[in-house]
Amino acid sequence: MDVKPDLAVFGIPDIPEIETGAPLADIIGDAITRRLTRLRDHDIVVVTHKIVSKAEGRFAVTRDGSVASLVESEASAILRRRGDLTITRTRHGYICANAGVDRSNVPGDRVVLLPVHPDRSAASLRDAMVRRFEVDVSVVVTDTFGRAWRRGLVDVAIGIAGLPALIDHRNQADHTGRIMEVTEIAIIDEIAAAADLVMGKATMVPVAVVRGLRLEPPTVGNGKATDLVRSPAEDFFL
Amino acid sequence: MDVKPDLAVFGIPDIPEIETGAPLADIIGDAITRRLTRLRDHDIVVVTHKIVSKAEGRFAVTRDGSVASLVESEASAILRRRGDLTITRTRHGYICANAGVDRSNVPGDRVVLLPVHPDRSAASLRDAMVRRFEVDVSVVVTDTFGRAWRRGLVDVAIGIAGLPALIDHRNQADHTGRIMEVTEIAIIDEIAAAADLVMGKATMVPVAVVRGLRLEPPTVGNGKATDLVRSPAEDFFL
Repeated sequence: MDVKPDLAVFGIPDIPEIETGAPLADIIGDAITRRLTRLRDHDIVVVTHKIVSKAEGRFAVTRDGSVASLVESEASAILRRRGDLTITRTRHGYICANAGVDRSNVPGDRVVLLPVHPDRSAASLRDAMVRRFEVDVSVVVTDTFGRAWRRGLVDVAIGIAGLPALIDHRNQADHTGRIMEVTEIAIIDEIAAAADLVMGKATMVPVAVVRGLRLEPPTVGNGKATDLVRSPAEDFFL
Repeated sequence: MDVKPDLAVFGIPDIPEIETGAPLADIIGDAITRRLTRLRDHDIVVVTHKIVSKAEGRFAVTRDGSVASLVESEASAILRRRGDLTITRTRHGYICANAGVDRSNVPGDRVVLLPVHPDRSAASLRDAMVRRFEVDVSVVVTDTFGRAWRRGLVDVAIGIAGLPALIDHRNQADHTGRIMEVTEIAIIDEIAAAADLVMGKATMVPVAVVRGLRLEPPTVGNGKATDLVRSPAEDFFL
């Protein structure tokens, strides 16, 4: 007999290639129905931004195979440059390689850009999921970012709806009764990372459902993924 | 009827306060037995470093409530300083606040330091789990780190045994047939983040078991968490 896990992550497969104007919420909802029959209250639907961008028509065409001019036009600031790699600030405030311009999993000479307003994209998908499944769920839109200091990429949240970006334990006591100091946890980035463990990169599993995470008041409610953007004045490493 | 998830995360509760010399592998093994009866091949046992450090006697005592002198002695380099916050490089090469000196969840005036060799600590725990449960499992030892550019902390891996630090998709084709460019995924940090979703910070759940992740050859095998350390020469942001 299987023991019930505290957290369960379901990959949602069989989502077709998405083109501009595709009814993404319906497509995701249908795929969730096939895999899980229904969603439950507190479920978190995690969606790689790639299919959001594609549905929103955020395609561009490279010139001679180079993304350099697209990176320039997508970035709000260029922070570092070395060879083909440019570290940029996006218009949303995120710091990532090549302003999010991405040529993987795109047929032809096209590349995919980041959604213009990923938090709004998440809110729109959430509204559709709540209507369709008649439960209270949240949505996290993800991208795959590099980090300072640590090799390797991880998935992070770039758009959310229905949950906070940060969980603030600062006023809670630890188990010894001492009030904890700095313990704002970037819960949406941990959710994105957990979902990536079932989504992978080379496969066609661009959606996952995370089940079992119960956020307690007062941390429930609506945040924005851009709440994670640290202002340049507060950042040590720019 | 419940649909089987692709990834399941189990919190392992009821681990008592750990003191120097405690038989940590036995304590964790007993708690896993209570929660799950047994481990299975490919399970990943995720352990917050705090209980590893405590079992290894990595306690220190603060002077007048200040950790400043401990941070100086634990760090191999001081990168930035502002008020009470010091960003350091540890002797392992990790970049984090206060060289990992941590006063939360420690009774009295004591603080907990990072394990001296977290990869070795993970290897020792793994050997014990493999012997006890007679299955092939891996171990990830975690800490909670801040990041450049993004607000909030996330759990990351500081010691591993039985799995690679990075999954390298660089020679794989994406679903359009194009060879992917830079897609080394820091899988152990994603595992640490997923586990933290059930471990929390104020609770006594310092261990989790992640079940369902199948790493394909040639990515299986032994890595070190320090494989994630980017050399200063390669890092844009120091």
